[in-house]
Amino acid sequence: CSMEMELPAAVVICFSVLHLTLPGVRALDNGLALTPPMGWLTWERYRCTTNCRDFPDDCISEKLMKTTADLLKSGGYLEAGYDTIIIDDCWSEKKRDPSGRLVPDKSRFPSGIKSLSNYVHGKGLKFGIYANFGNYTCAGYPGTMNYQKLDATTFAEWDVDYVKLDGCYSTEADRDEGYPSFSKHLNNTGRLMVYSCSWPAYASHSVYDKLPTYCNLWRNYADIEDSWNSVLDIIDHFNKYSRIYTGAAGPGHWNDPDMLIIGNFGLSEEQSKAQMAIWSIFAAPLIMSNDLRNMPSWAADILLNKDIIAVDQDPLGIMGELVKQTGHIDIYLRKISPHSQGQYSYACVFLNRAVGGAKTRIKFTPSQLGLTADGGYIVKDLFTGESLGHYSPTDSMKADVAPSGVVMYRFNIAIGYHSQNEISVITVQNFDESSGYKAITNKKKPSWSWKTVLY
Amino acid sequence: CSMEMELPAAVVICFSVLHLTLPGVRALDNGLALTPPMGWLTWERYRCTTNCRDFPDDCISEKLMKTTADLLKSGGYLEAGYDTIIIDDCWSEKKRDPSGRLVPDKSRFPSGIKSLSNYVHGKGLKFGIYANFGNYTCAGYPGTMNYQKLDATTFAEWDVDYVKLDGCYSTEADRDEGYPSFSKHLNNTGRLMVYSCSWPAYASHSVYDKLPTYCNLWRNYADIEDSWNSVLDIIDHFNKYSRIYTGAAGPGHWNDPDMLIIGNFGLSEEQSKAQMAIWSIFAAPLIMSNDLRNMPSWAADILLNKDIIAVDQDPLGIMGELVKQTGHIDIYLRKISPHSQGQYSYACVFLNRAVGGAKTRIKFTPSQLGLTADGGYIVKDLFTGESLGHYSPTDSMKADVAPSGVVMYRFNIAIGYHSQNEISVITVQNFDESSGYKAITNKKKPSWSWKTVLY
Repeated sequence: CSMEMELPAAVVICFSVLHLTLPGVRALDNGLALTPPMGWLTWERYRCTTNCRDFPDDCISEKLMKTTADLLKSGGYLEAGYDTIIIDDCWSEKKRDPSGRLVPDKSRFPSGIKSLSNYVHGKGLKFGIYANFGNYTCAGYPGTMNYQKLDATTFAEWDVDYVKLDGCYSTEADRDEGYPSFSKHLNNTGRLMVYSCSWPAYASHSVYDKLPTYCNLWRNYADIEDSWNSVLDIIDHFNKYSRIYTGAAGPGHWNDPDMLIIGNFGLSEEQSKAQMAIWSIFAAPLIMSNDLRNMPSWAADILLNKDIIAVDQDPLGIMGELVKQTGHIDIYLRKISPHSQGQYSYACVFLNRAVGGAKTRIKFTPSQLGLTADGGYIVKDLFTGESLGHYSPTDSMKADVAPSGVVMYRFNIAIGYHSQNEISVITVQNFDESSGYKAITNKKKPSWSWKTVLY
Repeated sequence: CSMEMELPAAVVICFSVLHLTLPGVRALDNGLALTPPMGWLTWERYRCTTNCRDFPDDCISEKLMKTTADLLKSGGYLEAGYDTIIIDDCWSEKKRDPSGRLVPDKSRFPSGIKSLSNYVHGKGLKFGIYANFGNYTCAGYPGTMNYQKLDATTFAEWDVDYVKLDGCYSTEADRDEGYPSFSKHLNNTGRLMVYSCSWPAYASHSVYDKLPTYCNLWRNYADIEDSWNSVLDIIDHFNKYSRIYTGAAGPGHWNDPDMLIIGNFGLSEEQSKAQMAIWSIFAAPLIMSNDLRNMPSWAADILLNKDIIAVDQDPLGIMGELVKQTGHIDIYLRKISPHSQGQYSYACVFLNRAVGGAKTRIKFTPSQLGLTADGGYIVKDLFTGESLGHYSPTDSMKADVAPSGVVMYRFNIAIGYHSQNEISVITVQNFDESSGYKAITNKKKPSWSWKTVLY
């Protein structure tokens, strides 16, 4: 299913063929993560901050975890679905105890992990922890190689609900044995734990056949960083391998493009909306890494957008993808419920990759996106919250999309409406209608075109 | 004066030698722009939007200019110093009139430019316009080549206060003749007009000897775009050519790193603070291009920060520069008033180029920045507005700087204080004290180091 499709009909065919393969995928048999996991993780914002003397509010500690658990509940995040709080690397002592057990850092987790887990559960949240398959974790703490059964047992005894298993300090052969093996050790404990594998981030694409069998979610690519460059880099990676990734995703087994960095330092409001929207198209885990004590209200509004969370958590669990790139505009679609007689509802995101000027106007009809249900669609703008009304497949629509921003529409199928025959053309219309970009000496080639595109 | 200095003393020497050359620069003899121009310009946000039917609020028109003039006054921008409103390209008809005069687009400027200029002056603002030295403007409108005297006369008759002369569709020889020549034509009109030259953006660095003689300000480099990448690219360019640019700048003649894009789509709040801070270090024109009708309040707060504007507009007019890069931290200094007996006050900006994690703590003493006045300094944080008190050159200080953000301190010399002898070391302390960055397969090399740096 090429990215270079010319006819709307091709979009529909592409989608249909792809998802016929889904029933053949065997998922990790723990019944968990039937929708993508949601929660909060320490890494992107807090990294391996262990100096609690100089940085008491930002070090990896039970204080940070408890405070964040409180805010996940009081800030409405738990209610919105962010139900799991996870410690990443740097929580343990540098050595196991004499019996070989992992022990938490005594000064930063003086009450112990079991106590922290109890606290988290008392808030109605689930508790997640980090391990690494190699001899060491990425930051040099004890690794799980040679301790798989003991670590799985320890986590179960601590009432852990979610385990992220990283892959530093291991060979490909180690990982090919270790990720499936640890999956079985987790299951053998009898405690249900969501299993997040960093396996494919360290591996070739050949592992994708095995991932759904052993993992509830998996990190496909490099760590996210606090920048729009990083978000675009991850989106580009997912677009490049869309066929593999959409084929592997489904209820119980998800691709993970990494944490939501909304509320940190590097993304503008428009860029933050873009991450939230595209992640929901990708049926991605929505796992924040930010400072809930200190965040602008617009960031909380984006993270708590119920309509977009509903797209992410759609019960059909069909991952969406890029369906067209035209000039500086990407169009993403995801099949969602309700569906009827082979016709689906859709989430649609227009991403504007421009780096200047005002908004770009996109003119289109639903049928040009491949949305051809006879009864048409009830359409809602998921960021403004505005109900746009009923549109038949050939009705004209528009979207004004900000540079490095998105517009996201939900198209719910509306049965019983008889469509009219109309002729229309998708137009990407730049406000700037001049003949070209300013040709200044030493100027780098602009990353997008100013030309009006028809297709 | 190398960027690779190791001793604080070298910083001071570098500054002193450089600015001894300033008295030799002859400035454009019109008495204007004794501090860097401030105002608003159409280009970055509105480009060449001429379709007023579909985009009535965003097309280049007298409506946009009048509305913005109103908001410059009512929003406190004029009072803060943003006193000039400038139209960029795409304001004229595609052909001159039978007498060879430029005429404004009849549908978008139905009242004419003189009427618009009167309106702007009625608000207490100055009025600026755009021309291009070649046969055409960059967007294909009539150019000023062969019409220099007539266009200068026309602008004077329209009571124009500021002319930006672009350089598309011209050869190097054309520009070497044309920019000085148009300067004389402007002066010959008898009306005082600030003269902004795009000359060096199209030329080699050899023109810098001539710029102060003919131009009040000049665009050194490519157009800014609405992204943090673009802001960093411009900062890097200015750092690379710091010796040339600081030598050319002074009252009446300024380097122009291009428009402030604060309030648009591509910069986060931290990144917006960074642009404002570094532009003020560079003694840059503060010329916004944004939508004053629709801007978050934090963006207005940054643009209206009186303390930072005061640094930009410092009457000494000494351009500042990068004095040290250490790990992911840049340190910028600018000599400002008050000064006494060869000792200056300083503006200091710490720029954090990190793309992840929490804030970075910088520990330093004023003397390590080259600030060695015996009496010490009265220090203020220009973004929080907090007065930090008195510091002698050897007192310990710190700054916590967000990723892709800045901290900006003003050090005013305090006479009569006797400093103590203390020993201290500048430390750049990352919150993350782990041994290294996570080594994930396929991971790009991180753009900054996690190591603790001492110097």
